[in-house]
Amino acid sequence: MTSAMIIDLRSDTVTAPDERMRIAMASAVVADDVLDHDPTMRRLEETVADLLGVEAALWVPSGSMGNVIALMVHLRRGDRFLAPYAAHVLANELGAGAWLAGGMPEPLAWDAGPGRISVESLRAAIGGPVPYHGLNTTLLCLENTHNAAGGAVTPPDEHAHLVATAREAGLTVHLDGARLWNASVALGVPPAALTVGADTVQVCLSKGLGAPVGSVVAGSSSFVTEARRVRKMLGGGVRQGGVLAAAGLIALENIESLADDHRNARMLADGLTALGWDVSPPQTNIVMASVPDVEHALTGLHRIGVLATPMAGRVRFVTHRDVSSDDIVEALRRLEKE
Amino acid sequence: MTSAMIIDLRSDTVTAPDERMRIAMASAVVADDVLDHDPTMRRLEETVADLLGVEAALWVPSGSMGNVIALMVHLRRGDRFLAPYAAHVLANELGAGAWLAGGMPEPLAWDAGPGRISVESLRAAIGGPVPYHGLNTTLLCLENTHNAAGGAVTPPDEHAHLVATAREAGLTVHLDGARLWNASVALGVPPAALTVGADTVQVCLSKGLGAPVGSVVAGSSSFVTEARRVRKMLGGGVRQGGVLAAAGLIALENIESLADDHRNARMLADGLTALGWDVSPPQTNIVMASVPDVEHALTGLHRIGVLATPMAGRVRFVTHRDVSSDDIVEALRRLEKE
Amino acid sequence: MTSAMIIDLRSDTVTAPDERMRIAMASAVVADDVLDHDPTMRRLEETVADLLGVEAALWVPSGSMGNVIALMVHLRRGDRFLAPYAAHVLANELGAGAWLAGGMPEPLAWDAGPGRISVESLRAAIGGPVPYHGLNTTLLCLENTHNAAGGAVTPPDEHAHLVATAREAGLTVHLDGARLWNASVALGVPPAALTVGADTVQVCLSKGLGAPVGSVVAGSSSFVTEARRVRKMLGGGVRQGGVLAAAGLIALENIESLADDHRNARMLADGLTALGWDVSPPQTNIVMASVPDVEHALTGLHRIGVLATPMAGRVRFVTHRDVSSDDIVEALRRLEKE
Amino acid sequence: MTSAMIIDLRSDTVTAPDERMRIAMASAVVADDVLDHDPTMRRLEETVADLLGVEAALWVPSGSMGNVIALMVHLRRGDRFLAPYAAHVLANELGAGAWLAGGMPEPLAWDAGPGRISVESLRAAIGGPVPYHGLNTTLLCLENTHNAAGGAVTPPDEHAHLVATAREAGLTVHLDGARLWNASVALGVPPAALTVGADTVQVCLSKGLGAPVGSVVAGSSSFVTEARRVRKMLGGGVRQGGVLAAAGLIALENIESLADDHRNARMLADGLTALGWDVSPPQTNIVMASVPDVEHALTGLHRIGVLATPMAGRVRFVTHRDVSSDDIVEALRRLEKE
Repeated sequence: MTSAMIIDLRSDTVTAPDERMRIAMASAVVADDVLDHDPTMRRLEETVADLLGVEAALWVPSGSMGNVIALMVHLRRGDRFLAPYAAHVLANELGAGAWLAGGMPEPLAWDAGPGRISVESLRAAIGGPVPYHGLNTTLLCLENTHNAAGGAVTPPDEHAHLVATAREAGLTVHLDGARLWNASVALGVPPAALTVGADTVQVCLSKGLGAPVGSVVAGSSSFVTEARRVRKMLGGGVRQGGVLAAAGLIALENIESLADDHRNARMLADGLTALGWDVSPPQTNIVMASVPDVEHALTGLHRIGVLATPMAGRVRFVTHRDVSSDDIVEALRRLEKE
Repeated sequence: MTSAMIIDLRSDTVTAPDERMRIAMASAVVADDVLDHDPTMRRLEETVADLLGVEAALWVPSGSMGNVIALMVHLRRGDRFLAPYAAHVLANELGAGAWLAGGMPEPLAWDAGPGRISVESLRAAIGGPVPYHGLNTTLLCLENTHNAAGGAVTPPDEHAHLVATAREAGLTVHLDGARLWNASVALGVPPAALTVGADTVQVCLSKGLGAPVGSVVAGSSSFVTEARRVRKMLGGGVRQGGVLAAAGLIALENIESLADDHRNARMLADGLTALGWDVSPPQTNIVMASVPDVEHALTGLHRIGVLATPMAGRVRFVTHRDVSSDDIVEALRRLEKE
Repeated sequence: MTSAMIIDLRSDTVTAPDERMRIAMASAVVADDVLDHDPTMRRLEETVADLLGVEAALWVPSGSMGNVIALMVHLRRGDRFLAPYAAHVLANELGAGAWLAGGMPEPLAWDAGPGRISVESLRAAIGGPVPYHGLNTTLLCLENTHNAAGGAVTPPDEHAHLVATAREAGLTVHLDGARLWNASVALGVPPAALTVGADTVQVCLSKGLGAPVGSVVAGSSSFVTEARRVRKMLGGGVRQGGVLAAAGLIALENIESLADDHRNARMLADGLTALGWDVSPPQTNIVMASVPDVEHALTGLHRIGVLATPMAGRVRFVTHRDVSSDDIVEALRRLEKE
Repeated sequence: MTSAMIIDLRSDTVTAPDERMRIAMASAVVADDVLDHDPTMRRLEETVADLLGVEAALWVPSGSMGNVIALMVHLRRGDRFLAPYAAHVLANELGAGAWLAGGMPEPLAWDAGPGRISVESLRAAIGGPVPYHGLNTTLLCLENTHNAAGGAVTPPDEHAHLVATAREAGLTVHLDGARLWNASVALGVPPAALTVGADTVQVCLSKGLGAPVGSVVAGSSSFVTEARRVRKMLGGGVRQGGVLAAAGLIALENIESLADDHRNARMLADGLTALGWDVSPPQTNIVMASVPDVEHALTGLHRIGVLATPMAGRVRFVTHRDVSSDDIVEALRRLEKE
């Protein structure tokens, strides 16, 4: 790596498939998934369901589609759903959860830590019985790790407490686990420990794990049956998707290596702090920096070949498998020279 | 009135049409409004447009339909709209603004007073340019008076400042003025002073003004042309609606008398305070009381023939033309005896 | 009536409320229907439910809203519904049945007479089992009388046979009976004989019966509970709607007098035929004339003060209670002079 | 191939990627397509745009998504769109064109040949001006080849005539060209000769051409800009999609070899006819057989290892690159032995 190289910290979605994945794709056993259920997709779906501790799973082309399918299955017109402020389903999916799934979103303040809501505020938001012409509160969406909160982790007991509160009140629970793998590694618990009680979960293969394309939405068998139909409605039914699922299976072997990304994120945060930046200590692979002028900061970074993105009023840096610790050192070196 | 009578403070929607209205309805000149534009509806619409200082207006069966029509005209799928926390379009319309109009709602905190948002937080919520796959923030919904904030009034200069901020950023502005008449009377300014710069306004005839059925949504002529079509889509196109519009025209003569309702609200609030209730000073015809247990309080009130409703975690009392100052005295007397 | 008078045969929706209706409106007992169920609306709804032989009914501002509420309750996204070609739900409701209710419409050819479908073609259209990614055919919409087919009547046994076929295949049945009263009078059977087996029915009070505003959608109690909620979603929940329901109750007394309209329609058809027009024999109050150029024909009629409308490629004349047999004589006299 | 082998004639979607495609996928140059436009996707999109003679193109995960994106861009609520009876957008996409895109579909009879509509009936269906509360007819959807009509081809002059008629009346035109390549080869004209005048075109890479996943929707640059946003809404935005686009580029080299499939289809049709089946002469790669009982016929075929599907009341056989002429001979041999 030379100083001329771009260090791309915009997102872990930029990760390219590695050699093993490419070979797996090239040799994948496939079939028409719409007609016959592609065997490699089936294998991927079963593997993910096992990892998440749920009955069944379904490959989808993107995490956004996984989330919106879950919301379409869970919500009816006139329903209200709750999610932590700035959750991906609220802020980053073109409002599909509202207009496609027919629900009215209600963002909840982060009163239990970054990206986290307290049981008390959840209970207050659910409220009591409503008249026939009132919104029915029927769904809680959680996000772990919470992206806009800087990859913030919700620990298993807190997750369980929120889920229990929601379910006691008759709500369904969807977990946006696009980066659930990061939460699992950061906490040192298996992914299934973080899905307890959730009706549905979405996890992403094409972020830190490095698969080129694909996410998985999972839950009960009956949910997956319905989700398969909704996926077809949205145009997400593919044919020989086994070529992508093969890459996804390799990606799942990369979970442990997310620890490297977390270490690199901490190194970046420490370095930035030493350089005088106002940075929150990263819990996983995302570093959020508060700056006076986000656009100005991003332009300055871009000039020295360090790429980041704006998010929720801050600068977001994301570490991933295509960025090494040497790259972080180099990025900090360039910043120091400014 | 005897002590056995029910004193109904649940809403100003309970007002019944009076004798003059009934006579006006019985003698209304009518035509098929879908085919020919009913002449009495036309007269009502022109009168309201003049009162609001806008080009044109359209009768609708309810305030909810007026609001959702405006949102359907203003929003496209993938748009984001802003509104003060607990606005009627967010909390009380079955989510139609989201799923029917295709927008993603974003509630804004009341940082400028009850039901009111500051220019700074509005500006921050609008934010800067977004990527192609981001939500476009295109609409600001205001509500004056703000129902769930206890009939809270936004004064003309503050309204103008918010509207100017929104429009500079390219947003459209819709004003839910279901109780705009109350704001006008409380502030001593004409209604048109409170609509300055708004693209569309909805006002209600069947709340404090006493008409049995109907609201009006107003704006430019081209908006009303489109709104008439959307009204038909939703099933709100009626035939000889002149019978209702005739009542609406009488209702408009009742605006000044809303001052009585405001006086009664203050009397009620003072009386409740004297009895030890935790009550915010009312700005118009709504009194909000904070109580330890809303359901318990409502049941107690019901037992002594005083009706109120739960709203946003508090007990709401609404004064209106079918409740006299004597009724308020009587309600307080019953409470005192408890 | 002088020869200068307009003879308005565009639609039976142009009928104005008569003196009795106006008095009934002026003296109606009312309440807030959203909060308390207005007593006059309740009385109207119970009366209509009895007439139709169903459990319960709900007032709505228009027939379009009644139909779309039924479709919204019956259909889910990915469902397919069947209706005779050019049915009102297909051609005249801005597509709300499709985009609002989420169904995919399939028009069926009139192979059993004008506006009527055969059991065989219904069975063929329903088809057999479909794969998970296929449209589920779940609803049959009938229309009696069928407007665009010239007020065509479906007799009770044919209705019953179609409904039985649909229900055996698991379909729900909705009957658009905007002019069911006309079918009932033409056939000499009670309205309930024409609703047998249908899950839901919509009937109109503001067409031939003369009420200024309003229709009713009816079915089981559980349907009406859900319909009341959907009506609120669409903005069709009104407050003191009793003023309109009172007119509706009087309108129901006008059913028998529809026989006059039918007689006038036959007189008009006979006269037109005698004048060389190509006219189908009317079954109820609608006369359809095939002409070389519809726009040209309508302009010519308009010049002599006779108003009609274009419908499904023909000229439509509708007789109604505000047009007397003298008016028909006069209309024919004017045409003869052309 | 042994007689024990399954001969899969259910669809050309069952084609598996060949060795060249797999190698291309394994060596594809990729980038994050949401953030940076993946270079291989870009190359595929440019190649397809050139082939179709339009400005720009966009990869999508499925033909259904390509079609619905086009309809979502073209249609507004209250619009009506026309398509030949049993078109894929009508019958095979879960109604998304209606409920997602907000349009009201109108199927047109095949009065100019299988799957084809005449200019006269198109003109009649478009009709004249409508009142403000009428459906606006704004879009014509064509399908070439027409699947349910047995892969029926519309020749260039007929296509051009229909398009001109639609555009003169102000309609937009979308062409579902999932099997446009087959039409091009059958007619011996370049694909661009079959898209003349259409605003948007969808073509499929994963049917006869053999790519594992993907279609392309194409049109003007401004359409593609909007389509990219809508694709993200629906969850069709992928990351390193270049791995699939690389297969797509190879697939485009297979266009000429579709002639083999057409030859095989004719051989199959001739053989079936010789065996007494009622078969229409195939124009491309689809053979439709009329049988007394579709389910029974399919079961019989399945028993001898020949797979077909039900479609529009007939049995559909589809030839494709994974079925050789020997396979056809064998299939006929098995049928003969029955």
